[in-house]
Amino acid sequence: MPPGEVVLTPLAGIKLVEPGDDLGEIAIAALAVNHLMPQTGDVLVVAQKIVSKAEGRYVDVATVEPSERAVALGAEVDKDPRFVEVVLSESRRVVRHRPGLLIVEHRLGFVMANAGIDHSNLSAQGGERVLLLPEDPDGSARALREQLVHAFRTEIAVIISDSFGRPWRKGTIGVALGAAGLPALIDLRGQPDLFGRELLVTETGFADEIAAAAGLVMGQADEGVPMVLVRGLRWSAPEVAAAALIRPAEHDLFR
Amino acid sequence: MPPGEVVLTPLAGIKLVEPGDDLGEIAIAALAVNHLMPQTGDVLVVAQKIVSKAEGRYVDVATVEPSERAVALGAEVDKDPRFVEVVLSESRRVVRHRPGLLIVEHRLGFVMANAGIDHSNLSAQGGERVLLLPEDPDGSARALREQLVHAFRTEIAVIISDSFGRPWRKGTIGVALGAAGLPALIDLRGQPDLFGRELLVTETGFADEIAAAAGLVMGQADEGVPMVLVRGLRWSAPEVAAAALIRPAEHDLFR
Repeated sequence: MPPGEVVLTPLAGIKLVEPGDDLGEIAIAALAVNHLMPQTGDVLVVAQKIVSKAEGRYVDVATVEPSERAVALGAEVDKDPRFVEVVLSESRRVVRHRPGLLIVEHRLGFVMANAGIDHSNLSAQGGERVLLLPEDPDGSARALREQLVHAFRTEIAVIISDSFGRPWRKGTIGVALGAAGLPALIDLRGQPDLFGRELLVTETGFADEIAAAAGLVMGQADEGVPMVLVRGLRWSAPEVAAAALIRPAEHDLFR
Repeated sequence: MPPGEVVLTPLAGIKLVEPGDDLGEIAIAALAVNHLMPQTGDVLVVAQKIVSKAEGRYVDVATVEPSERAVALGAEVDKDPRFVEVVLSESRRVVRHRPGLLIVEHRLGFVMANAGIDHSNLSAQGGERVLLLPEDPDGSARALREQLVHAFRTEIAVIISDSFGRPWRKGTIGVALGAAGLPALIDLRGQPDLFGRELLVTETGFADEIAAAAGLVMGQADEGVPMVLVRGLRWSAPEVAAAALIRPAEHDLFR
């Protein structure tokens, strides 16, 4: 590989993930099937959906009793009040809503539609099950990374990614929910630019750029390719979890 | 290259760009120096900064007479009123401001800090020159693409990228300002998911994901690597310019 080059390799052949599945074992098998021997500096990007599935983050909407608030909000946003109840139970507050759209601040701080709760693609027999985000995406990334570091005795990093919509721009893009073994956010403050002046761009969303890049080969909204190996990245900044990417509400002008 | 793999190659050896430089010739030379023969499906990502430089989009702040509005706003945001005047002249309206921060809706629709006007890294002798965005980034991408298609007789696509901050999340990421030869936005509506149900994710910001990926190898805020070749992407959606990525203000809940 020429220096500076970065390669994104989708890991083919991963079967549908079920609750209780061991994602570390699945990753190790998938790397072998795809003839990839992890190297220090590799980043494994894993789709949030299979992390949630392995962690059994299902809720059966049929068992949910909607609160009065969920009933009222459900009528306003034109969504099933039981689904709205699940969204609210995962959220700190509603940021914006209108018919068809419910944007909340997730309990982990993500500002996103429906608290990131997926109700597509769960299983043909899934009935009314919906799938929450992982309980602790940075923790899930750390655990998976430890398993991989132990198996391969090399410093591989892990990102758990999702697709987010965003204000001002159309189309979803990949975003990092969890990260371990790399700087999710890189602080460039104090570094000189080409001419020795201080940089104006002070922080870069490294893990988000990696998640967006992986999104290019994951395909959309299915489990076709839920793991991508990213090889060739370089960094010198210290490890920072993906939680650092979340701007505190008090510093945010848009909620 | 295995199927599905995507490779990001930074084009080394590009010199500092000056007004009037021919970016097509620079790209053709850089591809040759890096031993890359363009193939159909390749995407050349070009940093906005060198497009603006080649197009001579400089303004000498010393020649600017600030309006009363710029003086007042400059005091509020703690920025040079002449710089604020230039920002306002490139903008439709101010979206948010506070000391140190001025977020506007650029005349092209981008919601961004300082109308995307760069005042770092211009040149050691640049004095008070600032650099505006390209006049028409989609048009610049189209012109560059035509030049490359003609030179190589192959269907290469072009993206002009910038780094944007965003609400809710810290760190800048790569974003597509202009695009030609690919679908900047891919509409997935009506496509079935794995189980034959209609997808809930309806649009994907394809060009933005490519720009973010390229950001990983461009480095930050300098001209070190202002061009990146992306190889291995597949798409079947029709060509759409990057302007399609901008959500119309009347559909946006956050400005």
